[in-house]
Amino acid sequence: MKIALIAAMGLTLAIPASAQQAVTPAERQVHEQMLTLDTHLDTPSLFERPGWNFDEWHHVEWDGSQVDIPRMEAGGLDGGFFVIYTAQGPLTAAGFAAARDAALLRATAIQRVVAGNPDKLAFATTADDALRLHREGKKIVFQSIENSYPLGQDLSLLSTFHKLGVRMASPVHNGSNQFSDSARPKPSDPVHRGLSPLGRQWVTEMNRLGMVVDGSHASDAAIDQMIQLSKTPVILSHHGPKAMFHHPRNIPDDLMRRLARSGGVMQMNTLFLVPTTSSDARDKIEARQERWELLNPAERQQFLADQAAVEPFNRADFELFMRSLLHAVRVMGVDHVGLGADWDGGGGLRDMMDITGIARITARLRQAGFSDRDIEKIWSGNTLRLLRHAERHAAGKPR
Amino acid sequence: MKIALIAAMGLTLAIPASAQQAVTPAERQVHEQMLTLDTHLDTPSLFERPGWNFDEWHHVEWDGSQVDIPRMEAGGLDGGFFVIYTAQGPLTAAGFAAARDAALLRATAIQRVVAGNPDKLAFATTADDALRLHREGKKIVFQSIENSYPLGQDLSLLSTFHKLGVRMASPVHNGSNQFSDSARPKPSDPVHRGLSPLGRQWVTEMNRLGMVVDGSHASDAAIDQMIQLSKTPVILSHHGPKAMFHHPRNIPDDLMRRLARSGGVMQMNTLFLVPTTSSDARDKIEARQERWELLNPAERQQFLADQAAVEPFNRADFELFMRSLLHAVRVMGVDHVGLGADWDGGGGLRDMMDITGIARITARLRQAGFSDRDIEKIWSGNTLRLLRHAERHAAGKPR
Repeated sequence: MKIALIAAMGLTLAIPASAQQAVTPAERQVHEQMLTLDTHLDTPSLFERPGWNFDEWHHVEWDGSQVDIPRMEAGGLDGGFFVIYTAQGPLTAAGFAAARDAALLRATAIQRVVAGNPDKLAFATTADDALRLHREGKKIVFQSIENSYPLGQDLSLLSTFHKLGVRMASPVHNGSNQFSDSARPKPSDPVHRGLSPLGRQWVTEMNRLGMVVDGSHASDAAIDQMIQLSKTPVILSHHGPKAMFHHPRNIPDDLMRRLARSGGVMQMNTLFLVPTTSSDARDKIEARQERWELLNPAERQQFLADQAAVEPFNRADFELFMRSLLHAVRVMGVDHVGLGADWDGGGGLRDMMDITGIARITARLRQAGFSDRDIEKIWSGNTLRLLRHAERHAAGKPR
Repeated sequence: MKIALIAAMGLTLAIPASAQQAVTPAERQVHEQMLTLDTHLDTPSLFERPGWNFDEWHHVEWDGSQVDIPRMEAGGLDGGFFVIYTAQGPLTAAGFAAARDAALLRATAIQRVVAGNPDKLAFATTADDALRLHREGKKIVFQSIENSYPLGQDLSLLSTFHKLGVRMASPVHNGSNQFSDSARPKPSDPVHRGLSPLGRQWVTEMNRLGMVVDGSHASDAAIDQMIQLSKTPVILSHHGPKAMFHHPRNIPDDLMRRLARSGGVMQMNTLFLVPTTSSDARDKIEARQERWELLNPAERQQFLADQAAVEPFNRADFELFMRSLLHAVRVMGVDHVGLGADWDGGGGLRDMMDITGIARITARLRQAGFSDRDIEKIWSGNTLRLLRHAERHAAGKPR
């Protein structure tokens, strides 16, 4: 394993680590020219946080947030899929209704933020939209659903979200639901051995509407079934290789290969590359952090002191993340790998805790010998290819 | 009838008509101080019209629109209930789903417009919100549902709209539906003799959520049943007296009295005070008018010439509208009458075709001998009283 990895890293090992950290002005200019997308931005969960505004610069060390408009400009992130996430709840009529409302309100919050920043942001629903907005210098707001639990038993709600502009969705999150087994089921969850019958109908409806099927958080069996069932290639919007770290949210090389052979794409996650630790103390600190904007200066100092006293979350560093990405490219090929770092959803690297540093990925890939054309495939081209597949299928045109 | 009306008009007949037209600077200043609301603004139907922007001045003679932010300022309209209207369609699962989506998208459009004009507009969900926003100089955006058809058979969707900020709803529009008989049913419609069993549950749920029940467009029997069933007073958000003109959208004096005795309010409509005429030629002109913003100058001249050649819609004039309002005050009392002119929903008067002229209502009521306190009740106080009733009931407090 280790030898294969070192071989995969090629040129890069010859470059001193310190040089790998820096991004030269020339590299940054190359990065700036590229269309860069991240396929899993959980930032909409912050849109309703009191006092937090997407058009202002925030400090990740203070409030924990990782993406906002000024930092997108600073880091050179052109856009991505902004996530309508719903936590899994009970599989009851009341649970479904509450989840539906939560998802619709989150979608509304995204609409509000885009409408409130018309000079900076614009919605995209097609691959061509993304190219046009990049030319126009606007940040690209695709929308996706993480966990289709809010649809309840009523697949017609999928078209509601489609009409709101959503173009990607995953069936499930942590905990299995009416559509699919989860990569991380709870003991009392239903067991479908992959997708449920309703989950299979969900795939058909996703295809009919022209939405990209996202397998992240589903069990390996469910991902395999999505690959087989879907008429257009599947994305794993924020995922990792089990070869890097043995975790249910990472998949084995053979499944990665089947995904690639079907035309699909795996978007590299920053999470689940090292053992994670949890503690009540850290949970409490993170809950307090959500109120950062409301704290007075003395309370902020106290918070930062308390936070410093808590053992930090165990995270991968940039080099380990890049090894994971390069492993995926080696296994799947450069046409089947992209970036979905789970920003604002728990993602981040010890030495890259927000999006301001992402040009390092471009620089590091150039140092590893990738062409700029291939790097842009990783940043956006592969994802846009999947969108085009979905669009063409919905329009009744052949792949 | 005629004698009673003339008696009701009191002082006003002594004032020459020409003087009644003008609004003095002093009268306009009184109007400016008042909190003025219209309870049925159909303007959101324009929010998705290409090229039409709520923050720009429009000419009603050109594009037919009657309300926008600059004209609210020009006319002194502080806000109102912005309507999520859905046309009645088939009572089928597909019809319900399409209507649900249309209503949610309309709600989203309202969110976008408010988010896009944060210095001018703000949402209100309570009576206190309206008072606060009036002090702050912001236009007040309450939201209401016209026709609950989009809820389908699923009353839990009512709470979805409540969470989006909707605080008033009517069960039905033209054509009876799953909740209620319409004032204007179609021959093949279901007949409930008022509210259906589901319509009765709808009233209970409206009360539970603290939303104001709006009887406009329901049959007289259904309005009577809403008055009896509802735990908080009913509004007729845009309605008229049958004594003025015999039309199914107007109600007889005895029903007006029962509404008043129950604490309810009738908001005076500008429509259905004279016989209406329809013609294919005018329908075609109105359809063309929706594209005004997209026409080039030559096309605009052609449109205006074609429009001038078509017989205009038969409308009441300002004096007839005021007679209707004064009749309602005479029958119901000043605590039970308000304003809901159906702007952008077909309303308008021959000599007051948009909201820029509404200070004339204030001036005319002063001339008729009303105190400023009573005039403000008509403009907003009575409606806010009903909101408070609904709020208190939902909070478990006695009326």
